[in-house]
Amino acid sequence: GDVAKGKSIAETICVACHNPVTGEGNMEIYPNIGGQKETYLKSSIKAYKDGQRSSPMAGIMKGMVMDLSDEDIDNVSAYFASLK
Amino acid sequence: GDVAKGKSIAETICVACHNPVTGEGNMEIYPNIGGQKETYLKSSIKAYKDGQRSSPMAGIMKGMVMDLSDEDIDNVSAYFASLK
Repeated sequence: GDVAKGKSIAETICVACHNPVTGEGNMEIYPNIGGQKETYLKSSIKAYKDGQRSSPMAGIMKGMVMDLSDEDIDNVSAYFASLK
Repeated sequence: GDVAKGKSIAETICVACHNPVTGEGNMEIYPNIGGQKETYLKSSIKAYKDGQRSSPMAGIMKGMVMDLSDEDIDNVSAYFASLK
């Protein structure tokens, strides 16, 4: 994934719930995702998008990621994985 | 949650996929959970247990956590949240 393109997505979409500089969740119910494994990030974003996560909180994530392409998901996953 | 009791669960169950000392995932598809937010850990474990996460990977987690009580979930979440 392209980290620079992923950063742009982080700063415009993910920022609603995750700090785009550190990946920290803005609230206790939102996970820290900075330095998370890239493969897991891609897998989980796709699971939210495809409706394989169905809790009320997952509904928020589904709305956030529904317009991301596979390439966008690769890029934003690479970006958050790159953070320490 | 009781961190000491949670550590015991981490060392006997979670160790299958997450390093019980650091929380790091043992494979790229398994997330790092050391220092993750306690509230998110509890919420996500319950979502796996209750079938609100339904991908193939979620099936692994469901099997792992199906016998954990609410108290166990509180304890193991406190333990992994306590790691840096």
